[in-house]
Amino acid sequence: MRLSQVLFVTLREDPAEAEIMSHKLLLRACYIRRISSGIYSYLPLMWRVLQKTSQIVREEMNFVGAQECLLPQLQISDLWKESGRWETYTKAEGIMFSLVDRQKKELALGPTHEEIITSIVRDMITSYKQMPLNLYQIQTKFRDEIRPRFGLMRSREFMMKDAYSFDENIENLQKNYSAVSQAYCKIFERCGLSFHVVEADSGAIGGLASQEFMVLTDVGEDEILYTKDGSYAANAEKATSIPNPEDISPFDSYEERETLNCNTLKKLSELLNCSLTNIVKNLLYKATYDNQKSILILVSIRGDQDVNEVKLSNELNYLAFKYEASTLLTLKISDQESLLKDRLPLGYIGPDLKDSYINSKENIESSFLRIADKTVINLKNFVTGSNKLDHHIVGGNWGQSHRLPELILDIRKAKEGDKVSNDNYEKLMSKKGIEVGHVFQLGTKYSEKMKATFTDKNGEEKPITMGCYGIGISRLVQSAVEQNYDKNGIIWPLAIAPYHAIIVVPNMNEKKQIEIAEKIYHDLNNIGIETILDDRTERIGVKFKDAELIGIPYQIVTGRTLKFGKVEVVERKTKNSQEVIIEELPRLFHELLKNIKLSSQFI
Amino acid sequence: MRLSQVLFVTLREDPAEAEIMSHKLLLRACYIRRISSGIYSYLPLMWRVLQKTSQIVREEMNFVGAQECLLPQLQISDLWKESGRWETYTKAEGIMFSLVDRQKKELALGPTHEEIITSIVRDMITSYKQMPLNLYQIQTKFRDEIRPRFGLMRSREFMMKDAYSFDENIENLQKNYSAVSQAYCKIFERCGLSFHVVEADSGAIGGLASQEFMVLTDVGEDEILYTKDGSYAANAEKATSIPNPEDISPFDSYEERETLNCNTLKKLSELLNCSLTNIVKNLLYKATYDNQKSILILVSIRGDQDVNEVKLSNELNYLAFKYEASTLLTLKISDQESLLKDRLPLGYIGPDLKDSYINSKENIESSFLRIADKTVINLKNFVTGSNKLDHHIVGGNWGQSHRLPELILDIRKAKEGDKVSNDNYEKLMSKKGIEVGHVFQLGTKYSEKMKATFTDKNGEEKPITMGCYGIGISRLVQSAVEQNYDKNGIIWPLAIAPYHAIIVVPNMNEKKQIEIAEKIYHDLNNIGIETILDDRTERIGVKFKDAELIGIPYQIVTGRTLKFGKVEVVERKTKNSQEVIIEELPRLFHELLKNIKLSSQFI
Repeated sequence: MRLSQVLFVTLREDPAEAEIMSHKLLLRACYIRRISSGIYSYLPLMWRVLQKTSQIVREEMNFVGAQECLLPQLQISDLWKESGRWETYTKAEGIMFSLVDRQKKELALGPTHEEIITSIVRDMITSYKQMPLNLYQIQTKFRDEIRPRFGLMRSREFMMKDAYSFDENIENLQKNYSAVSQAYCKIFERCGLSFHVVEADSGAIGGLASQEFMVLTDVGEDEILYTKDGSYAANAEKATSIPNPEDISPFDSYEERETLNCNTLKKLSELLNCSLTNIVKNLLYKATYDNQKSILILVSIRGDQDVNEVKLSNELNYLAFKYEASTLLTLKISDQESLLKDRLPLGYIGPDLKDSYINSKENIESSFLRIADKTVINLKNFVTGSNKLDHHIVGGNWGQSHRLPELILDIRKAKEGDKVSNDNYEKLMSKKGIEVGHVFQLGTKYSEKMKATFTDKNGEEKPITMGCYGIGISRLVQSAVEQNYDKNGIIWPLAIAPYHAIIVVPNMNEKKQIEIAEKIYHDLNNIGIETILDDRTERIGVKFKDAELIGIPYQIVTGRTLKFGKVEVVERKTKNSQEVIIEELPRLFHELLKNIKLSSQFI
Repeated sequence: MRLSQVLFVTLREDPAEAEIMSHKLLLRACYIRRISSGIYSYLPLMWRVLQKTSQIVREEMNFVGAQECLLPQLQISDLWKESGRWETYTKAEGIMFSLVDRQKKELALGPTHEEIITSIVRDMITSYKQMPLNLYQIQTKFRDEIRPRFGLMRSREFMMKDAYSFDENIENLQKNYSAVSQAYCKIFERCGLSFHVVEADSGAIGGLASQEFMVLTDVGEDEILYTKDGSYAANAEKATSIPNPEDISPFDSYEERETLNCNTLKKLSELLNCSLTNIVKNLLYKATYDNQKSILILVSIRGDQDVNEVKLSNELNYLAFKYEASTLLTLKISDQESLLKDRLPLGYIGPDLKDSYINSKENIESSFLRIADKTVINLKNFVTGSNKLDHHIVGGNWGQSHRLPELILDIRKAKEGDKVSNDNYEKLMSKKGIEVGHVFQLGTKYSEKMKATFTDKNGEEKPITMGCYGIGISRLVQSAVEQNYDKNGIIWPLAIAPYHAIIVVPNMNEKKQIEIAEKIYHDLNNIGIETILDDRTERIGVKFKDAELIGIPYQIVTGRTLKFGKVEVVERKTKNSQEVIIEELPRLFHELLKNIKLSSQFI
């Protein structure tokens, strides 16, 4: 690429639309342009980075025996109705774009492809002999994000690799799953990323187990909880832990106390001179299912703990059948006032709030779903709401003053400082991360619903055991920038840099500089050292600034050293400079690049 | 690829959904699977063919200095409203899928990218020094086709290469245009296609001139008119020609004749004993513009000629401003009855039908737009309708019995047998073709509307001169099959075949056969000869049938000749077979493949 002949416009100022460094730098350095909220064009430099990253993904997926294919982006609603996800994706999470075609049929733009691939294999796989199998694609995906932000980190149109595995049984699935997980580690390592593998919630994809691959960065949207010894790491949405033990209650008898203006737990504990761990906090949630039925949930949890709404949602999804529904659409913490007959101010509800409080005018189940988090079940002489303004109960006890809810669940948020388990003294630490990969053991969730079966060794018909595996390629690329920049610009990891080297010609009026630059440009490109020639008639300062901004790993400067038959080679990352005899350049670059070349894999 | 380890299921029967051979074969040979009307999955073999074809396109586009990028598939309506195409694409042609996102904004799925690319360059190009420029992408595109059919030939989701060029002026555009046209010829040649370059109508894309690249095949949807000497070739939609001369009219005086039951021109000419060329045929069309105004058009054309509705639509688009509209939405030949006050049966209308016949109850312009095709202006003593049931006029003359319409246009369909021009005795011949490429000189159509300007050498601000260039990659691939098959299956051109060779192991129980097959498999793949190993435990007949069906150019059979240290190499196309010493295979394949390898191009 000759910079004088291509579309190359860098920006000196940070664009107003960008909040985080990687986003700013990709805009400034002529990698991407925003077209609309969460929608970007990939300019030629970016296209190369995406292709190189895709190629690494391809090589590692092929290495574990996966086969590349390409599935349609337009998906018909029929298949999503078979799997039961049409409502969830178009309404509950609302992340799927949908439309109606000229034949008045509902279509959606694929955010994921479990339905499509299952519909293909159910027609093609008939016998256990056809498995194990793993099919993948690299494709643009769509999500109608509530808040698109951070450039390619959370965009509405993005590039993804998604893979789907098919096995006879769970043991074989686990082999496939573990092979892909290892491939993922190799991919992220080859891309030069620092990352963590963590336990994860499976969300709307579902299944038996899942792990996320998190790139560590301060601007990550996810919280990772982990132990220093590496024995535990999980997304905070999924993490479990042992809470601090509760303090002994200062109360020893049941009593109603006046508690004026105690609209926060902190005020309450100060007034009553007790610990937050002595308090049973009660929260009201409203859940709506796909059959339009709503239920009110009364959650009791220890005063110093918070509810993990992802865990709560999962539990409510398991209970959908109880309400003749198939999936949870929304879960919201409630302001009470519109839902309950009498005004009960926040903070004064008790676990024994009567069902008759429910405002039955709305399409709402007539009794509360009462849930106790595990943190409250052993509390003695606790403090809690009295269902009466300005009053609380102290010295409450399950089985005496209050009935313990039948449904006892672990729905608390694990947090920094918690112990991981009773036999591990490591405490949880917290970091921010960006999810760049996610692997799922789906089991038979989709194959059962969509009737994708096979005949096993004994002639029995069984549902296929599936896995699915995603990598956000455009997000990965921006994460690599977020982990690799300095005040002057991007510092691409060598393996995914758009080019390996850039030749900077300090003075375009000096014929010798141009001649030698041209020769180096041809010689290096001819042997596969991908090289840019900056042959613009710009000032040398501008050229160096641009070379640093766009982050090409090596600069080759055809300046003063030419008279000794040498050029200067500067490493972008360290700024280390060395003078190199021109004829030695190919050997030097072969040496520099040798670690990023993989022996070609055929499949 | 080892056939025993991948998803490979061929079909013996033609699937009911397929009408043409290429479609049947791609389904049967495990290349594609239909998900919904006009929506297909590309299975692993197909994915390789698409990638190889894309790579050829890439190399030739790069060779003429174009740069690859990737633009979003989701397009915002704002940009299409700026260019004035939102209505045309969502309503008139109705080929663009559109949807409303969660922010209630209108989005569309890109069938083409003039708007997006123009919005990018208008922000980045400021000076003539930044041009010439050519940007392209290879991407999945969408069209909500009225009648998706023939598999990938006319599908709703398809793979395309689209390129956009930017120049200072028309002379430079023509250089870019001609370079891309040459690249296209090289691409289609490399892909092994037999094709024609023809003049084309520019349709909804618009601009100054355009050419199509047509693959010749009997199942093509387009008609190509051409001369044997190669001096002329055009899409029938665009073609112009000289009609046969008219016969001398047998009538010499104006008269009204009774013409009972003459509801066809043939019956009329037989009854009156005159030639079709003596008749002025009158057709009623209804055109509707984007401002909801409709007009009735009375077209007079010689009885032996047909109206080219593409030409008529283009003329009506030019006239949109007369009706305070900006674009034509629909053009339909009319059944008259609902539009005219009195019932006038088909075939009895005259060019002098009074405006007062128009049924003014509808939102319809109150006077006819009267158009005479050039074929009628020199007719003497013609026959035409009398605006009265069962009666025609004979001996009509313009300027005497009838007023010649002011609007005289060439809107006739050129047809087989016509002369191309008065000084060329070649007669037009007709063939069917499939459009696989289309190049357009857009001029300043988009840059003016979207204010994409630059400063020229003299400091003047001017609109950028644009071109655009498309290749239907998935359509091209199916066209290649349509041109290359026999009764046993596909015969891929070597350059785009998914693999170069397939090793057929006749007997999986013979250890030596397997050992040698494995060795050949590794050796050939290691030197870039892409080879499949058919290691399935199928009968030999099945293996040969499948090898032929999937169309791999060379079969390597590890059979009886092994005892002489040889394998049999069979060419798929000719069935020619040769015995080759195993160690000679690499040399043989290097020789066979040498013509399809291009020296690597860097840019």
